[in-house]
Amino acid sequence: MQFKPATRMSRLGTETAFAVSGECAAFAAKGNKVYPFHLGDMNIKTPQNIIDAASKYMGAGKTGYCAAAGIAELREALAEDVGKARGLQYGTENCTIQPGGKPTIGKFLMSVMNESEGVLYPTPGYPIYESQIEFHSGKPLPYGYYEGNNGFKLNIDQIKEHIENNDVRALIYNNGQNPMGSESDEKEMRQIASIAKDNDLLVLSDEAYFDIRYSGKSQSIASLPGMQERTVILYTFSKKFAMTGWRLGGAIGPQEIIEQMIRLNVNDESCSNHFIQYAGIEALKGDQSGHKEIVKTLKERRDIAVKMMNSITGVRCFKPETTFYLFPNVTEAFVRKGYGKGVKGMAKFRLDSLHQIGVSFCTRDHFGKRLAGEENEYIRLAYSGINVDQIEEGLTKLKEWLE
Amino acid sequence: MQFKPATRMSRLGTETAFAVSGECAAFAAKGNKVYPFHLGDMNIKTPQNIIDAASKYMGAGKTGYCAAAGIAELREALAEDVGKARGLQYGTENCTIQPGGKPTIGKFLMSVMNESEGVLYPTPGYPIYESQIEFHSGKPLPYGYYEGNNGFKLNIDQIKEHIENNDVRALIYNNGQNPMGSESDEKEMRQIASIAKDNDLLVLSDEAYFDIRYSGKSQSIASLPGMQERTVILYTFSKKFAMTGWRLGGAIGPQEIIEQMIRLNVNDESCSNHFIQYAGIEALKGDQSGHKEIVKTLKERRDIAVKMMNSITGVRCFKPETTFYLFPNVTEAFVRKGYGKGVKGMAKFRLDSLHQIGVSFCTRDHFGKRLAGEENEYIRLAYSGINVDQIEEGLTKLKEWLE
Repeated sequence: MQFKPATRMSRLGTETAFAVSGECAAFAAKGNKVYPFHLGDMNIKTPQNIIDAASKYMGAGKTGYCAAAGIAELREALAEDVGKARGLQYGTENCTIQPGGKPTIGKFLMSVMNESEGVLYPTPGYPIYESQIEFHSGKPLPYGYYEGNNGFKLNIDQIKEHIENNDVRALIYNNGQNPMGSESDEKEMRQIASIAKDNDLLVLSDEAYFDIRYSGKSQSIASLPGMQERTVILYTFSKKFAMTGWRLGGAIGPQEIIEQMIRLNVNDESCSNHFIQYAGIEALKGDQSGHKEIVKTLKERRDIAVKMMNSITGVRCFKPETTFYLFPNVTEAFVRKGYGKGVKGMAKFRLDSLHQIGVSFCTRDHFGKRLAGEENEYIRLAYSGINVDQIEEGLTKLKEWLE
Repeated sequence: MQFKPATRMSRLGTETAFAVSGECAAFAAKGNKVYPFHLGDMNIKTPQNIIDAASKYMGAGKTGYCAAAGIAELREALAEDVGKARGLQYGTENCTIQPGGKPTIGKFLMSVMNESEGVLYPTPGYPIYESQIEFHSGKPLPYGYYEGNNGFKLNIDQIKEHIENNDVRALIYNNGQNPMGSESDEKEMRQIASIAKDNDLLVLSDEAYFDIRYSGKSQSIASLPGMQERTVILYTFSKKFAMTGWRLGGAIGPQEIIEQMIRLNVNDESCSNHFIQYAGIEALKGDQSGHKEIVKTLKERRDIAVKMMNSITGVRCFKPETTFYLFPNVTEAFVRKGYGKGVKGMAKFRLDSLHQIGVSFCTRDHFGKRLAGEENEYIRLAYSGINVDQIEEGLTKLKEWLE
């Protein structure tokens, strides 16, 4: 029979970064040496106390269904943990457990966004924002960034312009940003909060990297006056505890929105894995040395990677205090090597790097369509899946290749 | 701020059976003895070899992301297992892993059903079918059942009538039925298949209970000529291996549809838990004595429960060879006890049973709206979460109460 997908499927996007993993694996399978800077995954083990807790509760029979919202003990523990780190009060009723961080994106949008309503989201940014907005018939309104003195700055004017011209329901804000590693200073975060309040926007604050921090203190937009009541925080155990493949996360926010998301849990997957939720309690309340070790490991990698990138002539790389990504501006080196600016030239540049020196990375173009006026060329280096010695070796090759 | 959910949320249903669990727990919390026949959950342990495999792979670092479609080894193993049991050939490309059986329902519908297109589904039936059809703007077309000589029969005329009057895209077929425990004989299954082929319908075959079988051999509609190419099988590890809380299942069907569902995986949850997928391989390929023990335990429960229910004057109960549900016709006993027929009377009957004798169960009304012409009163007894001695004790009380 002839099968024609439902028309809504034509609106669904993807993470094109997966294709990079595929190309990289294919190249490595031929016996080639590869330096994997493209991975958002981690080559770091989950702390043993968390693994032990999962084993314990699995053996103790926590293998049946549990509440769709999540087990009360974990909801309470997560509400308290997230609240404490942000100077806010949250209760069990403000928290639902999800099978990962990602499910919160689609469920938030389904709960709050009507058809044709606008939702602001960052680009370059996590591509699932745009995909889910479009899939559920919202109007995607991308906002961009520019280079400031110490990191990327959000294009506030672009946000204001979208709001003037559209019926906007919500804003997606990713502080501790993937792919750029950037974060707002206090002034910028206040500006965003003011815009949200003045225009009665709901905010999805993707705080996946809140606890991956090398100096200073992470800030949540939910902590600003008047913001807790309109903000849903996307939480994930994935990065903080190196649990990407466990699929455990949550949403923390106003009870009315969380209740809608729980209704979606009932319909979409019944509940998140039962015994893993007990492991989540151990992660939050148990020994934190595993988490600290993860951050220490990542910091060593960041330091060497930033230093080496900035040693390359024609490359400029900020030093983010959060995430495990670098987003160097490679324009000068790129042009010098003879590549033509734009999506095609960048695609060729990336593949040449993989095939000529084995250095694999994603580029700006894996994180949404370019906006008008983007003049520079950027690549994204993830250091979550590659050890220090390989970072040194790989980036030395990149330096030689580019110079 | 005032929060108004998106309008689509008004179309989302739920499983009202969860409310029964809540009432039952509240009653038990006051120190009352309860006989839990309402649970679709199992009070049986997951086989030890599966638990050991999960521990092993968790410890071995299978804690990072894996492919959105599922790991190739499990997709291959599941495709082979499902195919072999149904006399069909399936390959890895025909199979995607899901976090449970339930996700296949929504993802199938999103992949194939356009707005306003009709989808046939059983009532009484699993309430998520109707909820997801309505949520994704399809047209819900319920078909009913009637009592045959040895079990419930599907109302084929009703299906035909819907097809005459609507633009129908798909049919949901749940053989090994929840809540009725019924299954089609060969003739009935052929009729359904003919209707699907004649009208070019896609079929979602919910085979959650395919491997919970007490005598005979389970049949899949996908095995009938011309059906494999239009049928997606909903598979779950939940019942066969007592893994309800693990959240592991899959969809097996035509590659074109499976590919769409994998795109949804990328957007909705990235992937299913990584190490649990290895436990799934052990479940399928390892020692099967755990599974056999589960079926043996359930059979003992079924035998005593059916016998006791049929000993009650004014109760008629079929003896299903699959599922872990009974769906006795209690009309005569119900009326004799002075209850008025219909939804209200049945709700009172159920609560009185809980509060007067501690016997808790679901009713016909937890499985969709009644269709015109439904004259009888039915309750659903699940014996998956209650041991033989408690079945005897509880149903003795029910008998005394009803007589």
